[in-house]
Amino acid sequence: MNEMIRRIDPPEMPVGFRSAGVACGIKANGENDLALMYSELEASAAGAFTTSKVTAAPVRLSKKILAGGRCRAIIVNSGCANACTGSEGEADAVEMARLAAESIGIESGLVSVSSTGRIGYRLPMEKIEKGIRFLAESIRAGGNKNAARAIMTTDTHPKEVGIELEVMGKKARFWGIAKGAGMIYPQMRVDGVPHATMLVFLATDLEVKPDFLKSALDLALDQSFNRITVDGDTSTNDTVIMLANGASGVRINFATPEAELFQVALDYITRELALMIVADGEGANKLIKIEVRSASTRNDAKTAAAAVANSLLLKCAIYGETPNWGRLLAALGYSGAEIEESKINVSLDGVEIIRNGLLTEIPKRIIADKMKESRLNIIIDLGLGDEDDLYYTCDISPEYVDINKC
Amino acid sequence: MNEMIRRIDPPEMPVGFRSAGVACGIKANGENDLALMYSELEASAAGAFTTSKVTAAPVRLSKKILAGGRCRAIIVNSGCANACTGSEGEADAVEMARLAAESIGIESGLVSVSSTGRIGYRLPMEKIEKGIRFLAESIRAGGNKNAARAIMTTDTHPKEVGIELEVMGKKARFWGIAKGAGMIYPQMRVDGVPHATMLVFLATDLEVKPDFLKSALDLALDQSFNRITVDGDTSTNDTVIMLANGASGVRINFATPEAELFQVALDYITRELALMIVADGEGANKLIKIEVRSASTRNDAKTAAAAVANSLLLKCAIYGETPNWGRLLAALGYSGAEIEESKINVSLDGVEIIRNGLLTEIPKRIIADKMKESRLNIIIDLGLGDEDDLYYTCDISPEYVDINKC
Repeated sequence: MNEMIRRIDPPEMPVGFRSAGVACGIKANGENDLALMYSELEASAAGAFTTSKVTAAPVRLSKKILAGGRCRAIIVNSGCANACTGSEGEADAVEMARLAAESIGIESGLVSVSSTGRIGYRLPMEKIEKGIRFLAESIRAGGNKNAARAIMTTDTHPKEVGIELEVMGKKARFWGIAKGAGMIYPQMRVDGVPHATMLVFLATDLEVKPDFLKSALDLALDQSFNRITVDGDTSTNDTVIMLANGASGVRINFATPEAELFQVALDYITRELALMIVADGEGANKLIKIEVRSASTRNDAKTAAAAVANSLLLKCAIYGETPNWGRLLAALGYSGAEIEESKINVSLDGVEIIRNGLLTEIPKRIIADKMKESRLNIIIDLGLGDEDDLYYTCDISPEYVDINKC
Repeated sequence: MNEMIRRIDPPEMPVGFRSAGVACGIKANGENDLALMYSELEASAAGAFTTSKVTAAPVRLSKKILAGGRCRAIIVNSGCANACTGSEGEADAVEMARLAAESIGIESGLVSVSSTGRIGYRLPMEKIEKGIRFLAESIRAGGNKNAARAIMTTDTHPKEVGIELEVMGKKARFWGIAKGAGMIYPQMRVDGVPHATMLVFLATDLEVKPDFLKSALDLALDQSFNRITVDGDTSTNDTVIMLANGASGVRINFATPEAELFQVALDYITRELALMIVADGEGANKLIKIEVRSASTRNDAKTAAAAVANSLLLKCAIYGETPNWGRLLAALGYSGAEIEESKINVSLDGVEIIRNGLLTEIPKRIIADKMKESRLNIIIDLGLGDEDDLYYTCDISPEYVDINKC
């Protein structure tokens, strides 16, 4: 972590932001399922959405809203994705924005909407309407914990990160919440077409122009959410929305040392949230970092890392803590990346497990011991060029199947 | 099934072929693990191999042997893939061919070699040498059952199909054996680079030129083994080898009605074996046919079918017999194929489950009942063009993870 930024625990929202979370009855178990985040000041805004061709209604609506680069509130429900719901679903998303805007007294053109949950079902709009009115009344600076809970689906715990930094002598904050935990293989673009079940909401009280925010978010994505996978299934609802309201009184301009610090902070918070999603992947016990080094091209490095990170067989072996590393070589082989078998070296947390394409003589017992850790770091050196990339993934357990059989 | 061809049960090898299977001690459980198939006459031969860039030593050797279009024997072991074993592994594969050739008294340039099992380990050559000598002594016309057993790994039963047909007034036969059951997502080419754990051996007593056999096999692949998936992991050892020894006395020439009949028979036997592999996929309970119709291009149809067939989330829902069809739409969305959400219709065994991109009102109970069947037929109509394609897949159960955690 850069020494210029400091983690706040428990996390707090930046100045001028308020939020609330409530159980409005979408989830049968009575957990929070509706969240509202709001900026007292109009904010610069940027969003990134899945590149799938099947997109949820709220994704299409939020894309339109965020195209203007301004936003003041985000209304989010869990328990129903409002995806594959046709024109009625679109009207429901518009109505959610309208209700939120009306309840807090702003224009509905400044409200983004997100949904997550089962695909193919209409939202229970009566419950949502009552919920939104309640949220508007209870919204406050300390409502972030309730909001973080309200966006969860199969997540086992809320995911929230707050950081503080000093910029030009003044304090500023970044804050974010995220939810996983299945249908996680985000492939998002800031100007893309949306589709996935990862939701992330970010806020800062620094002042930036929308274009700056867009490009900073784009850079941050490719070292965080666009480099994680739980199950290789990209969702119809994947959304990242970031607001910057300027309440700190500090303005950041392009190509300044402060702009670099902004990127450092945004990269940090997005990567931390991304890692929390993978670590809490459905049924997962291990967080696995797959680094590919010395590839011929950056794209080869990414492709190879993604194939290894999505190999069901390797993820099962890691769940079983069994050193079945031939499966890693097989995944590299079918990845499509340029490789030369005899040049591949692989290490697991500093222990060399493959050298020149062959399993090393390191006793299985030593490798199996390393595999007992809850975080594994696998470095794959292709020995061909200078390009690197990485993916974060998790193991797949029988529990994953049990969670998703319904 | 075409009325010109007739299934033989129990299957028998074509005239002039002999085989044997034995337990030479590679598998710890004492099951058969070494098979030899042999033609009394020199035969035309064709092989297809995985397109992975990591390939097992026997795959590289067999490619060379089959490039000549002639072959008389195939020696196969299970329990060890002889993949990622470097130059020593290559020498072992060559030695297997030499031992088989010597034991049955033919040139080693006419012996193909295949292996399947764990990747990264050397073959126990002493056991294999003894096993090959025993095989050569016991080889006989009725040895096919033992051979079918000897190529199994996690398969729960041997897979063997025999058919008989009449060509120009004479009887001829086709015969084949196959093994799965995990690391199954073959993507093979007749002239490709090999890599996978699916093995298939085919024989006929018809007489054909090697070029004819090659092109017939190529056509057969794309409606059988290249259209199946169990887990989306392509193997380092995938191999299909076919021999045609002419012992029936019937010669088949290009572009004749008999050539068409040859293709019908080969398509039938390869598809039957492919379906047996999927139905016996590791931990699988259901065989699922995914047909995509009315796509803009053939490649779109294939891409869309493959994405649905490989969706872990959908496979979990089908295991649970839960009608979570939003996951199918999500998979179409991220497949990369051209789609228009509002034009998609989907049926499950005649029941319309999605119409114009929306879940239909058919009661869940009726759909869940259909899902209890052991064979499911899903038809996806994209409503865009005239191109069709399909994939065969299976469900994923917690047992799959249990089988592969070691």
